[in-house]
Amino acid sequence: MKILIINGPNLNLLGSRETDIYGDMSFDEFFEDLQEAYIDFQLSYFQSNIEGELVTKLQEADKKKFNGIILNAGGYTHTSVALRDAVAAIKTPVVEVHISNPMSREEFRHTSLITGVCKGIIAGFGLESYALALDSFLP
Amino acid sequence: MKILIINGPNLNLLGSRETDIYGDMSFDEFFEDLQEAYIDFQLSYFQSNIEGELVTKLQEADKKKFNGIILNAGGYTHTSVALRDAVAAIKTPVVEVHISNPMSREEFRHTSLITGVCKGIIAGFGLESYALALDSFLP
Amino acid sequence: MKILIINGPNLNLLGSRETDIYGDMSFDEFFEDLQEAYIDFQLSYFQSNIEGELVTKLQEADKKKFNGIILNAGGYTHTSVALRDAVAAIKTPVVEVHISNPMSREEFRHTSLITGVCKGIIAGFGLESYALALDSFLP
Amino acid sequence: MKILIINGPNLNLLGSRETDIYGDMSFDEFFEDLQEAYIDFQLSYFQSNIEGELVTKLQEADKKKFNGIILNAGGYTHTSVALRDAVAAIKTPVVEVHISNPMSREEFRHTSLITGVCKGIIAGFGLESYALALDSFLP
Amino acid sequence: MKILIINGPNLNLLGSRETDIYGDMSFDEFFEDLQEAYIDFQLSYFQSNIEGELVTKLQEADKKKFNGIILNAGGYTHTSVALRDAVAAIKTPVVEVHISNPMSREEFRHTSLITGVCKGIIAGFGLESYALALDSFLP
Amino acid sequence: MKILIINGPNLNLLGSRETDIYGDMSFDEFFEDLQEAYIDFQLSYFQSNIEGELVTKLQEADKKKFNGIILNAGGYTHTSVALRDAVAAIKTPVVEVHISNPMSREEFRHTSLITGVCKGIIAGFGLESYALALDSFLP
Amino acid sequence: MKILIINGPNLNLLGSRETDIYGDMSFDEFFEDLQEAYIDFQLSYFQSNIEGELVTKLQEADKKKFNGIILNAGGYTHTSVALRDAVAAIKTPVVEVHISNPMSREEFRHTSLITGVCKGIIAGFGLESYALALDSFLP
Amino acid sequence: MKILIINGPNLNLLGSRETDIYGDMSFDEFFEDLQEAYIDFQLSYFQSNIEGELVTKLQEADKKKFNGIILNAGGYTHTSVALRDAVAAIKTPVVEVHISNPMSREEFRHTSLITGVCKGIIAGFGLESYALALDSFLP
Amino acid sequence: MKILIINGPNLNLLGSRETDIYGDMSFDEFFEDLQEAYIDFQLSYFQSNIEGELVTKLQEADKKKFNGIILNAGGYTHTSVALRDAVAAIKTPVVEVHISNPMSREEFRHTSLITGVCKGIIAGFGLESYALALDSFLP
Amino acid sequence: MKILIINGPNLNLLGSRETDIYGDMSFDEFFEDLQEAYIDFQLSYFQSNIEGELVTKLQEADKKKFNGIILNAGGYTHTSVALRDAVAAIKTPVVEVHISNPMSREEFRHTSLITGVCKGIIAGFGLESYALALDSFLP
Amino acid sequence: MKILIINGPNLNLLGSRETDIYGDMSFDEFFEDLQEAYIDFQLSYFQSNIEGELVTKLQEADKKKFNGIILNAGGYTHTSVALRDAVAAIKTPVVEVHISNPMSREEFRHTSLITGVCKGIIAGFGLESYALALDSFLP
Amino acid sequence: MKILIINGPNLNLLGSRETDIYGDMSFDEFFEDLQEAYIDFQLSYFQSNIEGELVTKLQEADKKKFNGIILNAGGYTHTSVALRDAVAAIKTPVVEVHISNPMSREEFRHTSLITGVCKGIIAGFGLESYALALDSFLP
Repeated sequence: MKILIINGPNLNLLGSRETDIYGDMSFDEFFEDLQEAYIDFQLSYFQSNIEGELVTKLQEADKKKFNGIILNAGGYTHTSVALRDAVAAIKTPVVEVHISNPMSREEFRHTSLITGVCKGIIAGFGLESYALALDSFLP
Repeated sequence: MKILIINGPNLNLLGSRETDIYGDMSFDEFFEDLQEAYIDFQLSYFQSNIEGELVTKLQEADKKKFNGIILNAGGYTHTSVALRDAVAAIKTPVVEVHISNPMSREEFRHTSLITGVCKGIIAGFGLESYALALDSFLP
Repeated sequence: MKILIINGPNLNLLGSRETDIYGDMSFDEFFEDLQEAYIDFQLSYFQSNIEGELVTKLQEADKKKFNGIILNAGGYTHTSVALRDAVAAIKTPVVEVHISNPMSREEFRHTSLITGVCKGIIAGFGLESYALALDSFLP
Repeated sequence: MKILIINGPNLNLLGSRETDIYGDMSFDEFFEDLQEAYIDFQLSYFQSNIEGELVTKLQEADKKKFNGIILNAGGYTHTSVALRDAVAAIKTPVVEVHISNPMSREEFRHTSLITGVCKGIIAGFGLESYALALDSFLP
Repeated sequence: MKILIINGPNLNLLGSRETDIYGDMSFDEFFEDLQEAYIDFQLSYFQSNIEGELVTKLQEADKKKFNGIILNAGGYTHTSVALRDAVAAIKTPVVEVHISNPMSREEFRHTSLITGVCKGIIAGFGLESYALALDSFLP
Repeated sequence: MKILIINGPNLNLLGSRETDIYGDMSFDEFFEDLQEAYIDFQLSYFQSNIEGELVTKLQEADKKKFNGIILNAGGYTHTSVALRDAVAAIKTPVVEVHISNPMSREEFRHTSLITGVCKGIIAGFGLESYALALDSFLP
Repeated sequence: MKILIINGPNLNLLGSRETDIYGDMSFDEFFEDLQEAYIDFQLSYFQSNIEGELVTKLQEADKKKFNGIILNAGGYTHTSVALRDAVAAIKTPVVEVHISNPMSREEFRHTSLITGVCKGIIAGFGLESYALALDSFLP
Repeated sequence: MKILIINGPNLNLLGSRETDIYGDMSFDEFFEDLQEAYIDFQLSYFQSNIEGELVTKLQEADKKKFNGIILNAGGYTHTSVALRDAVAAIKTPVVEVHISNPMSREEFRHTSLITGVCKGIIAGFGLESYALALDSFLP
Repeated sequence: MKILIINGPNLNLLGSRETDIYGDMSFDEFFEDLQEAYIDFQLSYFQSNIEGELVTKLQEADKKKFNGIILNAGGYTHTSVALRDAVAAIKTPVVEVHISNPMSREEFRHTSLITGVCKGIIAGFGLESYALALDSFLP
Repeated sequence: MKILIINGPNLNLLGSRETDIYGDMSFDEFFEDLQEAYIDFQLSYFQSNIEGELVTKLQEADKKKFNGIILNAGGYTHTSVALRDAVAAIKTPVVEVHISNPMSREEFRHTSLITGVCKGIIAGFGLESYALALDSFLP
Repeated sequence: MKILIINGPNLNLLGSRETDIYGDMSFDEFFEDLQEAYIDFQLSYFQSNIEGELVTKLQEADKKKFNGIILNAGGYTHTSVALRDAVAAIKTPVVEVHISNPMSREEFRHTSLITGVCKGIIAGFGLESYALALDSFLP
Repeated sequence: MKILIINGPNLNLLGSRETDIYGDMSFDEFFEDLQEAYIDFQLSYFQSNIEGELVTKLQEADKKKFNGIILNAGGYTHTSVALRDAVAAIKTPVVEVHISNPMSREEFRHTSLITGVCKGIIAGFGLESYALALDSFLP
């Protein structure tokens, strides 16, 4: 089962900032652990700060026949019609994840343009949110 | 590990309505299957259509030392300050679940008074949302 | 033809308050008169101040094969997603009634969460609203 | 008992459009049937697509001593202060009717400028709404 | 000096309704008195319940070289972009008048689409508002 | 190919006002030129300042088997549910045109009740907008 | 003088949660102290998490001829039209109290459906708010 | 007949700023002309930039038995509940005037807290607005 | 115990206006009675119609070591950020009082900029509100 | 005549998704046909999913002396101030096109930041919208 | 170069409150230091808690031929149309300063009525904001 | 002292457009002058039209130990949560600058997602805004 994890803006900073909250593990390290823990999955990972590159990656994933996409669109979650359109346009099911719980944060994070076209949303469980998203693809 | 599943209004109708969408399995049947699949958990289940009884159950769960609560507040999700206060008042971590994806539905389902005080939210995976919520309590 | 009349919060006070407006007839007395006037109908009556009990009654009415429900949800009309979901979930047609005209009253009574899923609405005709609702079930 | 039925814009199209929904009966035919069914009433009928003509007709009805008016203002329901003022200015009681249920339709149909000054509202029962409105004038 | 007075919907009812408030003088009678009191003015009067006829009259007044227009658009004040456009399109100065004070009335009367393109507004002085509007055209 | 052009309020003033902007060509003159330029079309033209007459004309066009309607509803674009309903009720495809670009103008011109039920919209090209709308009906 | 104190949802948790803020005194203990301090009053106490039971209690208090009611509706303060209607329907004067100051808290606590129909409001003085409410009933 | 004219903030600058628009006549000069033109009136004049002094002056005018007040509250028109309360508290009738037409200006000038409690409003006629306001006090 | 009572705009009119509602007692008389009734308090009183003087008085009270301030900001309650900042800046606890219940009045009185930074609020008990506020300072 | 067509995010998917709606023609194929049909134009084409690249392309087009730009900004239409600024900054006239009619779709597609600074808009005619936009550049 | 610094409400408290944040330097002390550091400027200083006095001072500064004004309007920034009008009316350029960053604070501080008519804004640099404002007047 | 200046979309056009307003100096030229004027600073400059590249540059600046960042995010100021998150995530202080005053421009430029997480804001001083921002980093 081929799953692509797509991370949006600023998520490349994990492990090097606010380490008291997020721990000192980078997403790359976490990704390795995740791959080891889920040996039945063939995981890929992509990160970009650029909205349009995330759109492009979603489109490509569809052509490359991934079985699923795990998307943490970061700050674009709340503002990007383009990402919404990309998710809606492709056939590959997309699960939205967030490390923290957006509803516990600022008002402008309470709306999401993306959730409504995703298969589901998992948010608030730290990096564990990604693992739960993988679980959701288990038969 | 003791987990309490609390279902809110109209969720007692599962299995008997819109069976083409939700299947013909009642939540009771699903609950049995879930208990069997998660033998390391000791699961309890409570359903009520009455907002205040859900509040009371959340309070009791805190006293009975449950390790976690899985809460699908149904229609009260969008309107109940009382439930929000109950979740915020207790120490037991609460995970919010929804069978469908509220953000794909009517406008008034896009706001939630409860999510912000829950540990996390899992929505859109059908009954599987409950299983993923259990996974989130795994060490 | 079996019809269930469901009254929501504070409607049990009819006849004992503001008698200059509503008259001094209690709903029980009115109900008897109504049954007499509509001998071809077999009428049942339920009142509760508790939102969840109204939800439950709607669900039960569906199982008990009523031909129709007349619902005056009182103050819950404007705030209850749970009642809306119950009306939408059942097959029995529901007609919404109000004794007074909510649009002539305070701003917060101008929105209704329930009307949109009911078969129709009849409001503003005093207790006569219930009789007109019965008429609507006539073949 | 003299009752005037006033229909607003586009209601002249009944019977010739969307016949699968509304049936193939024109309002004129329905009006004849209605008159036959309610022999104790002396019914009159007026339709116009022009907001101001509806205003004028409401004023005239007041002078001609109709006992009641049944008003389906169509699209003007949601936008016409002029119609509201006319209904409020006259002494003849006005009952608002709608064939469909506006609250089940687009957001902009959820507000009504007219309901608040009418005696009552009956909506959602198809053409039967007019008959129920007549019932409401029965002693 | 040629002045045209244009009255909108329901203002033809003056003198025959709510006579305790507005007095029992019809606008026609008032108009005669006004003409007598302002002998230096040549007054014309037009009333219509139809929005588009008011638009047309405003256009014609411009061609007929009136020196000014006094406009009481009644209920169309709050909803008519068409009237606003007509006032803005013509060269003849338009003074808006109201018999009562719209800001003391319902919320929906607090906005005006027309005021912003008129020369000025005079409201709240009863029929005297028209006389004050005439004064405003005095050199 | 039979096409009907319908112009709403104040569009009869073209050519006689603000001639520095719109030029000194009246719509009648423009219409003649247009007919000459598009000899494969059989063009008809209707203008009214009255909302309800525009509604009526749209209904008639449907019966008279026009192949298409070009509608510039002027100020009613932003306020008329009645026109929206008429456009939605008829089978003849309607193309919305505007001479200027409403989005460059006042806030209240940024919403349109009509666009959503039209086949398409062409705005901002001056009188050329009408010619482009004709082009859109070319096979 | 007979006074009924009604507490809404989650107020039964006083003394057992957040004891650093609210102290470790339960409301029952506080109630005893209050009765002792106000010996001229005959105090009764009722708590429920269920909105409808609060409605019912308000109705009963009216029949039992209490001289006044002190109501802390908790989370229902901000959402319950049913409670508002109950307060408005009864003759017994109701004083609204809150332990904390809702205006210092989340946005959704800044609106109250209940205050407008109460005799007065006392908020922000901790449990002392109840004592001040009693003072307000002193002659 | 004693009339007090009260001018709010920045109106003391008349005649010395934007003289191309407002002319080079100060309000003091205008006031003298006004007094001369209206010899049957005994006019007084007060200007302050301080909201509270305007409140105080309104209160005093009531005690000094003025027959009427002409109030141009300037920028406080749109923000001052205190001025509204003062106007509502006194018996002396108050006429609101504005030199320019607030509805032709910025959005925040389109709301007025004061108009609703004044006898009437006259706006947009330049300094002539004050003269028209005097006319309104003529018998 | 030194307490300062600060009254905002128009509260100096108490006793001379609307005496049927507020009685014919001026605040000065009431203040004397209050001092007599609360002999353990050393009361001071200040009233101003000027927002900034209220700000200054709040600042001074802090320096003069008052034990508490009772503030009725009148119309400034709903509009004054300056007063809010003053209350927040000083250490002396401030209790907000209102004679009437602002939530029973116009919409614009339903928001308060001041309540959120006060210790508490007491409103709706007539002049008795001040006495209850004094009670709140009792040990 | 040199015209540049700029397509925004997800428009590269044309022809490969939802082919029942959009047909199985890719934009590249359509572009070739368009060039053939409009031999008097020298057409260029650019597509990007990246907002900033669209901004850059607009700037370059201005330097390269294109006679016009046809812009379909896709999802950025509703959110991009940057694109608006680019369109406003350049001298080359820009015509906005859309394949579908945004006003028939979700609420968040009803606002456009770009339309107001474009020369005009053409929407709802399928790929034909591009051809009509070309027509608009014809002399 | 003559510069006037105007401080609004509560800014007289600098140095005596929240000294851990703002330091223990009063504005008077800071002002002396500032004058010493900027010897080419002739600085004046004015503070008032009274909105109208700030308006008056702005007007006077214009007459006294100051070269510039530095304005920290404190809480009036967000509510004062009168101050906005004063700034707009005078010719002297006004630079708005704030010690803290209003956009990091409460929602109601995010709007400013004054910024739009000032030459520029400098906020968030502590007392240093005033020095930067002086720099902005350097040639 | 190392300072990085980051310019967002369309700011690369400075000097070549609207030269009557902005002058004919390009930002590159201005940057050279700025470096010469501030010889104690080591300045770097980056411009991009791409939101994500600005995010990336902010992250890199943090690693490269710049002492400060001057950010003019152009059109992204009003829409970019991603940029806000980047500014909030890094330790390097960021000063927001704008050449013009956004509050004097369109409504949608009055909100900023970025200001609240910046150290301060300087806007409205033309290119001088950048120099003032440099001043703010002076010890």
